[in-house]
Amino acid sequence: MKIAIIGGGSAYTPGLIEGLLKIRHEVPWTEICLMDIDRDKLKVVSAIVTKIVREADASAHVTTTLNRVEAITGSAFVLCQIRVGGLAGRVLDEKIPLKYGVIGQETVGPGGFAMALRTLPVMLEIARDIEKHAKEAWLINYANPSGMVAAVLAKFTQIKAVSICDVPIGIQYFLADAMGVPHHQVKLDYVGLNHLGWFRRIFLKGEDITPYIHRMVQSQDILSLLPSSDEKTVEETKMALRIYEKTKVIPSPYLQYYYLTRESLLKQQQERQTRGEVVQAIEKELLSHFAEVVEADDVRLWKSRGGAWHAELMVNILSSIHNDKGEEYIVNVINQGCVPGMAEGACVEIPCIVDKRGARPMPVAAPSLDMLGLMQVVAAYEALTVEAALEGSYKKALLALNLNPLVPSLEVAKQILDAYIESHTGQIRLS
Amino acid sequence: MKIAIIGGGSAYTPGLIEGLLKIRHEVPWTEICLMDIDRDKLKVVSAIVTKIVREADASAHVTTTLNRVEAITGSAFVLCQIRVGGLAGRVLDEKIPLKYGVIGQETVGPGGFAMALRTLPVMLEIARDIEKHAKEAWLINYANPSGMVAAVLAKFTQIKAVSICDVPIGIQYFLADAMGVPHHQVKLDYVGLNHLGWFRRIFLKGEDITPYIHRMVQSQDILSLLPSSDEKTVEETKMALRIYEKTKVIPSPYLQYYYLTRESLLKQQQERQTRGEVVQAIEKELLSHFAEVVEADDVRLWKSRGGAWHAELMVNILSSIHNDKGEEYIVNVINQGCVPGMAEGACVEIPCIVDKRGARPMPVAAPSLDMLGLMQVVAAYEALTVEAALEGSYKKALLALNLNPLVPSLEVAKQILDAYIESHTGQIRLS
Amino acid sequence: MKIAIIGGGSAYTPGLIEGLLKIRHEVPWTEICLMDIDRDKLKVVSAIVTKIVREADASAHVTTTLNRVEAITGSAFVLCQIRVGGLAGRVLDEKIPLKYGVIGQETVGPGGFAMALRTLPVMLEIARDIEKHAKEAWLINYANPSGMVAAVLAKFTQIKAVSICDVPIGIQYFLADAMGVPHHQVKLDYVGLNHLGWFRRIFLKGEDITPYIHRMVQSQDILSLLPSSDEKTVEETKMALRIYEKTKVIPSPYLQYYYLTRESLLKQQQERQTRGEVVQAIEKELLSHFAEVVEADDVRLWKSRGGAWHAELMVNILSSIHNDKGEEYIVNVINQGCVPGMAEGACVEIPCIVDKRGARPMPVAAPSLDMLGLMQVVAAYEALTVEAALEGSYKKALLALNLNPLVPSLEVAKQILDAYIESHTGQIRLS
Amino acid sequence: MKIAIIGGGSAYTPGLIEGLLKIRHEVPWTEICLMDIDRDKLKVVSAIVTKIVREADASAHVTTTLNRVEAITGSAFVLCQIRVGGLAGRVLDEKIPLKYGVIGQETVGPGGFAMALRTLPVMLEIARDIEKHAKEAWLINYANPSGMVAAVLAKFTQIKAVSICDVPIGIQYFLADAMGVPHHQVKLDYVGLNHLGWFRRIFLKGEDITPYIHRMVQSQDILSLLPSSDEKTVEETKMALRIYEKTKVIPSPYLQYYYLTRESLLKQQQERQTRGEVVQAIEKELLSHFAEVVEADDVRLWKSRGGAWHAELMVNILSSIHNDKGEEYIVNVINQGCVPGMAEGACVEIPCIVDKRGARPMPVAAPSLDMLGLMQVVAAYEALTVEAALEGSYKKALLALNLNPLVPSLEVAKQILDAYIESHTGQIRLS
Repeated sequence: MKIAIIGGGSAYTPGLIEGLLKIRHEVPWTEICLMDIDRDKLKVVSAIVTKIVREADASAHVTTTLNRVEAITGSAFVLCQIRVGGLAGRVLDEKIPLKYGVIGQETVGPGGFAMALRTLPVMLEIARDIEKHAKEAWLINYANPSGMVAAVLAKFTQIKAVSICDVPIGIQYFLADAMGVPHHQVKLDYVGLNHLGWFRRIFLKGEDITPYIHRMVQSQDILSLLPSSDEKTVEETKMALRIYEKTKVIPSPYLQYYYLTRESLLKQQQERQTRGEVVQAIEKELLSHFAEVVEADDVRLWKSRGGAWHAELMVNILSSIHNDKGEEYIVNVINQGCVPGMAEGACVEIPCIVDKRGARPMPVAAPSLDMLGLMQVVAAYEALTVEAALEGSYKKALLALNLNPLVPSLEVAKQILDAYIESHTGQIRLS
Repeated sequence: MKIAIIGGGSAYTPGLIEGLLKIRHEVPWTEICLMDIDRDKLKVVSAIVTKIVREADASAHVTTTLNRVEAITGSAFVLCQIRVGGLAGRVLDEKIPLKYGVIGQETVGPGGFAMALRTLPVMLEIARDIEKHAKEAWLINYANPSGMVAAVLAKFTQIKAVSICDVPIGIQYFLADAMGVPHHQVKLDYVGLNHLGWFRRIFLKGEDITPYIHRMVQSQDILSLLPSSDEKTVEETKMALRIYEKTKVIPSPYLQYYYLTRESLLKQQQERQTRGEVVQAIEKELLSHFAEVVEADDVRLWKSRGGAWHAELMVNILSSIHNDKGEEYIVNVINQGCVPGMAEGACVEIPCIVDKRGARPMPVAAPSLDMLGLMQVVAAYEALTVEAALEGSYKKALLALNLNPLVPSLEVAKQILDAYIESHTGQIRLS
Repeated sequence: MKIAIIGGGSAYTPGLIEGLLKIRHEVPWTEICLMDIDRDKLKVVSAIVTKIVREADASAHVTTTLNRVEAITGSAFVLCQIRVGGLAGRVLDEKIPLKYGVIGQETVGPGGFAMALRTLPVMLEIARDIEKHAKEAWLINYANPSGMVAAVLAKFTQIKAVSICDVPIGIQYFLADAMGVPHHQVKLDYVGLNHLGWFRRIFLKGEDITPYIHRMVQSQDILSLLPSSDEKTVEETKMALRIYEKTKVIPSPYLQYYYLTRESLLKQQQERQTRGEVVQAIEKELLSHFAEVVEADDVRLWKSRGGAWHAELMVNILSSIHNDKGEEYIVNVINQGCVPGMAEGACVEIPCIVDKRGARPMPVAAPSLDMLGLMQVVAAYEALTVEAALEGSYKKALLALNLNPLVPSLEVAKQILDAYIESHTGQIRLS
Repeated sequence: MKIAIIGGGSAYTPGLIEGLLKIRHEVPWTEICLMDIDRDKLKVVSAIVTKIVREADASAHVTTTLNRVEAITGSAFVLCQIRVGGLAGRVLDEKIPLKYGVIGQETVGPGGFAMALRTLPVMLEIARDIEKHAKEAWLINYANPSGMVAAVLAKFTQIKAVSICDVPIGIQYFLADAMGVPHHQVKLDYVGLNHLGWFRRIFLKGEDITPYIHRMVQSQDILSLLPSSDEKTVEETKMALRIYEKTKVIPSPYLQYYYLTRESLLKQQQERQTRGEVVQAIEKELLSHFAEVVEADDVRLWKSRGGAWHAELMVNILSSIHNDKGEEYIVNVINQGCVPGMAEGACVEIPCIVDKRGARPMPVAAPSLDMLGLMQVVAAYEALTVEAALEGSYKKALLALNLNPLVPSLEVAKQILDAYIESHTGQIRLS
């Protein structure tokens, strides 16, 4: 049983491999094939990964390739964590809007839009390769923008796919850890789109404990419970608290860009570096670290690129599919009447039952009007962005970007769009 | 047959009366009752109106009252053109957001929101009076925000009502005049909400002449065809052309606030006076003019407060109802499946058949995604504003205002809302 | 301006021509082209029609052809009144079900089903000819089953078409005549499918006079008001009264087959002749009569084939389109959210505004549950029958026929379907 | 932890108790309270049940009461298996329609209709008692008509409830047994209403094995695999095979009444006894048997009243709720957009996730048109029957019965309805 990792040169890969090793008793894979278009990163990452696997289990092995079809062929699962344009692309995505007085962010606003224009056509190519060379394989996608990717896969391809995001699971695990209970005992009444959602009710062993959680949040002790004290997490939490204070609903961290647009922009304008630049530095450091660990030939030393939940979610989903477990996860799916008020074809992020038949969504309570209005406009923006990306339509791209709530005008949209096309040389093709 | 005019002290009233005189052969009214809460304006306006009517036809007469129930009782039609808080209120509505770097406008954005909070409860009271004292009467409403008023009347009252706006008819008549054809030969495939819509196709005697109109618009000669060369109309048209240039769809003039939010704001910030202040001056001048005309005892001299289409639309609708004509007008109605993609209960502005059974909407083609997304978020904002206004809910008001596309953050929304509550002493009651 | 009549050899044609002559002042046609595949009937009918037209107006003329493309080419309107398989086919349609203890009727139950299987492919061919040879022409269809024909034209072709039925207009005119008021002053709140609907409210000059009409119906004097005392009309009315007595809603005459299935069947089983056979005799007689009139060279003598409303509706619709009148007619259209509870794509029969843009439906009040359930199952049956007819699918045909409320079992459905295929040699092709 | 059984005097109770004993390790109940209005049956059944429980586990005990409130008070679960009017009522339900040439059946057609009219008001009373005396309790309902009961509970009460039926689970377990695999490894893509559904696809450990099952069915060996060779099961299966042969979809056994209406009626007319009479005899025998077993004081001897799946489903559901398991069961729930094409409020029978939050439905693939049409008309019939039963409306009852596909006319419907009202003295109250 072969598992392919597209974007295998990512610094997240070693963490993911550790996750895959942990579940080998229930998902008995024998080969992991790392595929990347970045030869250098692939070399460094595959070296440490190979050591990690060899150390753990002699019966499994790691292969590498620069050829996507080769990676996909014969795979039972294809894990996708690509970043089209790399971190350099992300830096452009974030910097350009700022130049025009607009929030620059990886996945929301113009940044997410540019990322979508670059990523969606590539995701479609990957899906076509799977249709052709491994049509029974499951694609588990972690590449952003995960919601639009889910829409592309569901509407334009025949492959079996699940498109995930670790934000909801992160909140679930954080709350479980804060209460000292096993993760699976906590369930969430979450509704939204990818990177735009609300945690409406929290359940512990099926009991609604939302009032208890609200007291916990209101006490502000929540900051002391954070799993990490890194500045980003603390800042995000503080912004979320500012929103919560007025809405009394726990927001996804990304809602700050919609609810506190002006304040978020101001904050970004005051920062010396974009988040992309910070992450570039982190990645550089990690790759060096991996090289050292390989050199030292002692994988016990290696430290991961955070995002542990990413790996955990990925392997849990994989096992729930492979073993037909029917566990409940919040993932990105096409609305099929499950979110009242949302269009049938919109891609939503809601609780799903995940088994060998894929991720089947479950109906959720109707979003309140304030949630619904925001979800609708962003869903329309996303649907139009998908069309623009796959059709290569400049006009649709412009209208989509203008529709994005973070963009203050059609003319600003045009400036940003034109700047993206020019900067991302050849990677955004519209006419 | 009695017609009541609520807000009869408006400077628009004389023009409206002229319209009503013109249709007496098909709507044989005998009494017009002017009702207003502003004793002074009512006195001036009723004086000129009485003279106009007397001059025109001895068999009809004008009465006045400060008592709404008295005006309504016995009426076959109640025409409503109130402005709760008067022009002074409008000035506040427009100035306060500007203080916080947000567009200040009579009917869209925070301005329209504040107007709704003040107006909707009063409209409900008027409707209750009609239910009680003239339940067979028709209410023809021109008070803004006309869309939200339509929603309140349709969902919370039993009265027969039509809620109108002269923007679509203005475009229709402008295009007809520009082509030199009778008004009724031009029909529009218009879709939107009140003060938020698109003129998608234009028909002349049933033939689609959109390409011809587009050539006319693109030639920019359109500026030379404007019925008025006043600065406001020219500026609005220029903004509309900036939008048209990129979207290739003729926009409602009010779309500039959504499509060119930043540019509109900048423009407003550079103006010495808000529009409300300009209108205050115009009204003052007109009332003096009316007084002079009355004094001179020669009504042939009087000059109207523009908005001729307002009067024409009002009396045409009235006659189409009274005579069961079934003419087609674009008015504000509850969506009943007529606009694909829009919620069933949303208030939309679309072509309707108007007869004794009221305004029955006709299905329109599905809005494109960029239209739909904007309509949906504003419709959700409007629905939540209606709830906030009628329930007096501070929380819903805050969430509604935050949802409005012109408002850049929840915290700014709170500042504006609090400033409104404080400034409009007693007229906005939320808890 | 040329008007083609497909099925021009019908005995209805002379009446239709008279109607067309009456509207020449507003629809200035110059040529009527009669097309039929039955050379003999075409000869007889064209002879009398030619005389009628010549007598009436020298500037118009009549042409005939056996070639459909020739008839269509150059036409502004194509009127369609075909009967695929002729009256002999209708006799089979009605007799075969009776053999298996099932109602045999021209347009409902198995009879209508067989008619649809034969007619729909031909209607599609006609539409293709129009697309190719006269794409600006309007098709006004009177061929049954009119609802399914409307669905085929709307979903599978690009032509401009209206598909009509004279049942609703018949009731409208009957009520107007009974009250002694002009036809157009009466309007109906009718909802249903073709040959399956309810007259819920009746309006006279916009006033709801339903209670008055109900008193009229309940008095049973209604039988004395019937425009015709022929047995068929009296019997139909009596059946309708039996339904009305229990439901208190005025039914379409065809509802007897659904509401009084057992009783209708019993009645048919006791009759010596099927309706088709009766009509065959009538037609034979009429054609002889036409021949005699032509021989006598005195067209003042000619007597029509009843169905005056058919002609009146056809020419009124034609004029309302041609002159962009926007009159209200009840015709068959695709539901576009206008009938709450009915599927979007279902073909419904409801009030529409008819002008140069075609028949635009207006939203109607939600059908009650008992109406809705019946409409839904018949709409599903119709949709499946359309698929069966156009795809030539035996399985879909069988499942459709079984779904029809008049059919008592899947095995009986199979027997009837097989008998139809065998009897209608070559005209029903399924595999 | 107390469990109440309403209708505890049923012959099914001992089997249910055995099921409850088996799950005591995961649902540690301490008291079962049997409630019934039939003192005699309650006495016999409670005697054997008390012995069974005592034998099995000294820590649990059985109580009995004639007072429903007493039974409900303090319960964590209320299991409901009432039959309003008893088997004598069922015999009437089945015999009366036959007198008028209409199928007489316990839960479909007029029989199910009469049962609904008697049962729904009582279910509402039970729910009101739970709301008042044990609002945290779960009601697990097995009383028929289970779909309409589910609708009443969901729409008119606030209680936590699941309404079940053992038909789908019966097919699931039958297929699993036939293949020799554990029950939970088989899952079904089932869609329908209660006693009206289709088994579209069958999954084994998540793999679609429908083609394999179809070969099994087609081989007709299926008869040899039946768990029981009793005549009823064999006959039902043969009827199902007749349907399958033409539709190629596995039908619910109850579909024979809709697909083979005429044939089913003929069969019933030839039988000496109605099914109700047969069951009356079985029950009498069983109660004697229970009395003997108690007398003999050896509970190892007792034999159950079949329906083992009923008990198994009931206790599995109970445990899945109590332990927040989230297992998948096919139960009756309100459609919340899960069945495309079906009205939002309709009660459907589809796969649900069952945990402490109740039964949450999962979206299913759109029913084909032939399925949808039948589901829609029966759902409308059910919704109207619910209204008739709760409002006591004779007119709605008549229109509902007429809408039922098994009823051949409005007049026959009236005869049957009137006969029911007269025979079920005082138990069906309409005006």
